[in-house]
Amino acid sequence: MNNNPLNDLFDSFNNEMKLVDNLINHRMYSDHAPLIQDLTNHLINAGGKRLRPLLTLAAAKMCNYQGKYHIHLATTVEFIHTATLLHDDVIDESLKRRGRPTANKLWDNKSSVLVGDFLFARAFQLMVETGSLKILSTLSNASAEISESEVLQMSLSQNLAATKDQYMQVIRGKTAILFASACEVGGLISEANIKQTQALRLYGEALGMSFQIVDDFLDYAGNKYDLGKNIGDDFREKKITLPVIFSLEKKDAIQSEFWKRTLAKGQQNPKDLQMAQKVLADDGSLERTRLEAIYWSNLAKSQLKFLPDGKINQLLLNLTDYVVARIH
Amino acid sequence: MNNNPLNDLFDSFNNEMKLVDNLINHRMYSDHAPLIQDLTNHLINAGGKRLRPLLTLAAAKMCNYQGKYHIHLATTVEFIHTATLLHDDVIDESLKRRGRPTANKLWDNKSSVLVGDFLFARAFQLMVETGSLKILSTLSNASAEISESEVLQMSLSQNLAATKDQYMQVIRGKTAILFASACEVGGLISEANIKQTQALRLYGEALGMSFQIVDDFLDYAGNKYDLGKNIGDDFREKKITLPVIFSLEKKDAIQSEFWKRTLAKGQQNPKDLQMAQKVLADDGSLERTRLEAIYWSNLAKSQLKFLPDGKINQLLLNLTDYVVARIH
Repeated sequence: MNNNPLNDLFDSFNNEMKLVDNLINHRMYSDHAPLIQDLTNHLINAGGKRLRPLLTLAAAKMCNYQGKYHIHLATTVEFIHTATLLHDDVIDESLKRRGRPTANKLWDNKSSVLVGDFLFARAFQLMVETGSLKILSTLSNASAEISESEVLQMSLSQNLAATKDQYMQVIRGKTAILFASACEVGGLISEANIKQTQALRLYGEALGMSFQIVDDFLDYAGNKYDLGKNIGDDFREKKITLPVIFSLEKKDAIQSEFWKRTLAKGQQNPKDLQMAQKVLADDGSLERTRLEAIYWSNLAKSQLKFLPDGKINQLLLNLTDYVVARIH
Repeated sequence: MNNNPLNDLFDSFNNEMKLVDNLINHRMYSDHAPLIQDLTNHLINAGGKRLRPLLTLAAAKMCNYQGKYHIHLATTVEFIHTATLLHDDVIDESLKRRGRPTANKLWDNKSSVLVGDFLFARAFQLMVETGSLKILSTLSNASAEISESEVLQMSLSQNLAATKDQYMQVIRGKTAILFASACEVGGLISEANIKQTQALRLYGEALGMSFQIVDDFLDYAGNKYDLGKNIGDDFREKKITLPVIFSLEKKDAIQSEFWKRTLAKGQQNPKDLQMAQKVLADDGSLERTRLEAIYWSNLAKSQLKFLPDGKINQLLLNLTDYVVARIH
């Protein structure tokens, strides 16, 4: 690949994305509480990649949608995403997101919770306007699963008994379900046939899985691929991600002791991150994780043959390669 | 009144409330995260009055509803209420709710936010099952306004410039809108005519306004009506409620200075609560507040003549009297 397929996608939907931005700005307005707009503005205009709304626009266009509600749905998806970020900020007590101070440090936990709730409500109002119960069903199911999976993630922190299945459920909820729904609702609003709608959903889900596994892989392996890459966040936060789960499966006594001390007990010394990287590289866990990411990327790709051929199909194909390009 | 009309209402819908309880227990179940059930169980079974779901059941019955979805809607309303309580617990850092430790002290902020989100999502799933876009519209609008008003409330804390209009918007969002929607969706699911549905909404809204104003009145005047009543929470939390707004409207220099010190600056001495009570009693602000509560109670009552006559109408009438009975 010569170009960045995400930019290509953005360029192809430049006009529609302007309409999405307008609708975002219009609907984040509150009659009663101007603070809401300030806070949301900060988050939504912080230079996010807008990948999720782009997926909705692409899916609708690919299915030859002629109406105007794909704009509503792209906005819906971005609002749900932003609301989960706001609630994550409360949860993780993270200091920064996208390199800027998070909402809850500039304002406070109160505002983050309430404005997140407001955006969820706004997202449902937008869906109601489309008049599609199928879409409302898809995205209310997705919302439930997102919060369930975040609760699961919480209970697995520092928990060395976490399984690969549980990890998969966590990242499904954290990332893949909203990718899946973003694609699916583009098909639903177009009244695409069930085979196509299903393919869109699976494409989005697999793309999201791949995306998140790459992220978790790079959090240990990143500086081999990009010298400037910031690594070790998951290790410091004692999250049990896929590389560690694979390493624990080996049941090597010395390594198990290492994970127990650093992740379960959280006793970390300055050189432990480097040691963790070495363990995961030497015992093959990083390589297994890399292969897992590529597997999901290929699975996403395989769904595209059930969908209309053409320029957008090609853009979505390039996107599957792009997600794993960083780990090749 | 000899009896407690809330108990009468509960007794009249005993069977339906059992179905609501079953549905609550069924739908708070999570495939992925058992913690959710523990937390929700704690809150939902903590002996709340279940007033909101009762309003939905009563409205549907009064409009002669013959289907099964009033149970879904009563559950929806209770889930939305519980979700807002959970998010309030994060927000207010309150130590206790209903005399038991709040969820966020037993668990933590993380769980309260996520389980609240889960219950919101479940509420929308239940609404989708009813197949009514009007209901989805009513309750997504209500959800947006609830969070907006809570943001407004936050910005008015310690703010002596708060107006009566702003106070009314805050309590509308905090209490009245969910009462209004609980009643309205009972009419909508019954396909009642628009005049009846509107009357149900206004009944619920006015009942909720009355309910909240009584609460804010008693927080200063309570020990005159009930020796054991716990008072002064709003004062200690520097909330600007209706009695204080009325007092500030008088623009008495000495009193204004008192409110400025105790509420705006938050400098409170041990005897200040007693002084606040005396100021509000002497300058007529408590009496104005009491009359305001009675006004809303009467407004609620006036809507009942647009609704079918009979036993339930009488129960709802008694409820309007009951809400203000404590301040007579």
